[in-house]
Amino acid sequence: MDARRILLVIFDGLGDRPLTELGHKTPLEAARKPNLDWFAANGVNGLVDPIAPGVPAGSDTSHLALFGYDPREVYTGRGPFEAAGVGIDLESGDIALRGNFATVDEKMRITDRRAGRIHEGTVKLADALDGMKLGRIKVMFRAGTEHRAALVLRGRGLSPKITDTDPHEIGEEIRQAEALEPAAKATAKAVNAFTKQAHKILNDHPVNRARVAKREPPANAVVLRGAGVYPDLPPIPERLHVKAAGIAGVALIRGMFRAVGIEVLDVKGATGGLDTDMIAKADAALAALESHDLVVLHVKAADLCGHDGQASEKIHVIERLDAMMGHLKPTLPADVVVAMTADHSTPVAAKDHSGDPVPLTLFGEGVRVDAVLAFDERSAAQGALGRLRGQDVMNLLIDLAGRAAKFGA
Amino acid sequence: MDARRILLVIFDGLGDRPLTELGHKTPLEAARKPNLDWFAANGVNGLVDPIAPGVPAGSDTSHLALFGYDPREVYTGRGPFEAAGVGIDLESGDIALRGNFATVDEKMRITDRRAGRIHEGTVKLADALDGMKLGRIKVMFRAGTEHRAALVLRGRGLSPKITDTDPHEIGEEIRQAEALEPAAKATAKAVNAFTKQAHKILNDHPVNRARVAKREPPANAVVLRGAGVYPDLPPIPERLHVKAAGIAGVALIRGMFRAVGIEVLDVKGATGGLDTDMIAKADAALAALESHDLVVLHVKAADLCGHDGQASEKIHVIERLDAMMGHLKPTLPADVVVAMTADHSTPVAAKDHSGDPVPLTLFGEGVRVDAVLAFDERSAAQGALGRLRGQDVMNLLIDLAGRAAKFGA
Repeated sequence: MDARRILLVIFDGLGDRPLTELGHKTPLEAARKPNLDWFAANGVNGLVDPIAPGVPAGSDTSHLALFGYDPREVYTGRGPFEAAGVGIDLESGDIALRGNFATVDEKMRITDRRAGRIHEGTVKLADALDGMKLGRIKVMFRAGTEHRAALVLRGRGLSPKITDTDPHEIGEEIRQAEALEPAAKATAKAVNAFTKQAHKILNDHPVNRARVAKREPPANAVVLRGAGVYPDLPPIPERLHVKAAGIAGVALIRGMFRAVGIEVLDVKGATGGLDTDMIAKADAALAALESHDLVVLHVKAADLCGHDGQASEKIHVIERLDAMMGHLKPTLPADVVVAMTADHSTPVAAKDHSGDPVPLTLFGEGVRVDAVLAFDERSAAQGALGRLRGQDVMNLLIDLAGRAAKFGA
Repeated sequence: MDARRILLVIFDGLGDRPLTELGHKTPLEAARKPNLDWFAANGVNGLVDPIAPGVPAGSDTSHLALFGYDPREVYTGRGPFEAAGVGIDLESGDIALRGNFATVDEKMRITDRRAGRIHEGTVKLADALDGMKLGRIKVMFRAGTEHRAALVLRGRGLSPKITDTDPHEIGEEIRQAEALEPAAKATAKAVNAFTKQAHKILNDHPVNRARVAKREPPANAVVLRGAGVYPDLPPIPERLHVKAAGIAGVALIRGMFRAVGIEVLDVKGATGGLDTDMIAKADAALAALESHDLVVLHVKAADLCGHDGQASEKIHVIERLDAMMGHLKPTLPADVVVAMTADHSTPVAAKDHSGDPVPLTLFGEGVRVDAVLAFDERSAAQGALGRLRGQDVMNLLIDLAGRAAKFGA
């Protein structure tokens, strides 16, 4: 059998629970979605626990699992993946933290944890901190979306076992990072030195002087959390012998792609928000299949509606996802194996990730098409794939694509 | 409950994928198989991933799993099991390699990797090499089917971490085995000494002089690959407290039996090929149940059709397997628990093992008979057993047979 190509479509936070207001249907069951159903009806279906039954997955751990890694082994905190996502070129061993621009008073007490949700001028502010030297430790610093930012420390003998500087409360002082193990003392010291210098540099920065003049809270400090070490993951191209590309609007998922050797493609209009251009993303995925063996297409929107508790908005997003798959369907090359799934459930009623499993459809030549006719949580439970783990998905795809190595002889 | 007896029937490579030429049925779905279906309808059914979902299993790793071992822990390469299969009585720690008789020119360059697919005289040639002494290392050498052979080295301080001598290409010299770790130097040296001496002995052997006279390529060298160490597996009789016997035509499976303490039975007409006498094997299994607690009945034929890409031939084999089970059915003692399954899928379209799960039927007193009416891949997916791992099968059988030890109190 000739090796085939793979399209893995991940609908972030798609899974849900039945809602009284929807006549005890889930948003996926309530939506009109002929194209999603077409793939399910012509494919084989099952339920996937991203990590394990009842364990709510983060977007980072679930993506690691869907990419075939064991998150319990390789996950080192969100910081490293988010730093990669905002474009810092990390190396194995780097220490990364997530951060916010914040506003502090003269006693370093937080007056606004998000500096008035600053969204302009943050690149300039970040540039003023990027490249700072703390002894032998090199600092990389980048702005993310709005008030968010990422800090990376590079040097010998660093450890991620330090406490956060973010007090998470208005009126409290920025905390001193503390070492949770003796080997982390130098790292904690560096983080505290960064906090001090950053305040000095930011307080005087023209961007902040302009903000003060406009009576906006200045972004005159950085609060940090979630220190992690950038893991040394065997890249997908080496591990599975596929050339891989990924499409995603949100920084975290783009960071996940980078961390596992999936080339990150830029698509005009892919924002990671509700306003994202799904058709443009679908077209980019089709184009990427011309030159790649594996293309991952990630769409964030359904997750946002789950977090916001918006059932009707989630249904609307699902109908747009359906249109995206309908746009893909007629031009999909015959040798492409397609997986449609989610990274986790984000039930509208829970307003957060839950441990409910998510539907999985595999579509393509050779799949054992089952009797399932619809792409939703309860239909998938009747599918011939049964109940699988997130980590199984990539193996199933690589096998269906005729690219799997035999274990044994 | 009195302890019952167990019959584990393994249809090698039985699982498949839907084929357009069969109206989107698998060969198993397309075959007429009233007896296989009878067992499914009167038993409990499920799907088994020999190793894990999407992971194509070798026949060796999958049999280890079906016998209740964790192949990821105990699998040491095919060489040891194949050497055991051709009748070498291995001990834990022995180093085994698979080999071919080959033809080389005066510069040790391969002119025929299979010595003209020699099939006569190989036992005499092997005898001339068997028992060779290489310093303190003892050599055991046996002919397999046709040009195939197995080499075993026994001695202190040996390591399987060496490279192959088989260059896999016509026109190339036989390679020197190289140590992949310092502890393997003596082993590599012994293998290279064997290669040299074997050439000297074989070149002059009467069998080869006769071949040259008939203008046939002489089997004047041995090429080796796949070094492995014979593992120290806790034998099934000790581990599960059953007296076990196995019936199989192919050397590899006979070797697997030996390695785990399953007594290998010889059955006249059991060839491991398409011409095998399945009825004779069924009778031998019934007879073996008189004196054994566990009998494993392995039939290779379906796998061969999968590798050859022959759908109609695979259907024909399945109908013969059905006749075999029909022959067993009326004389099966009431206290026998039966499992019917496969070691892996070998889809006709893939012409190789795939990661698709295989059907499992458990039949016997006390099983929770489900609504499944047919023995095939998609019917099994609806069964009450759900989706299991290869390693679970032996536990299920031992438990149904009333022979399982409680875990806890």
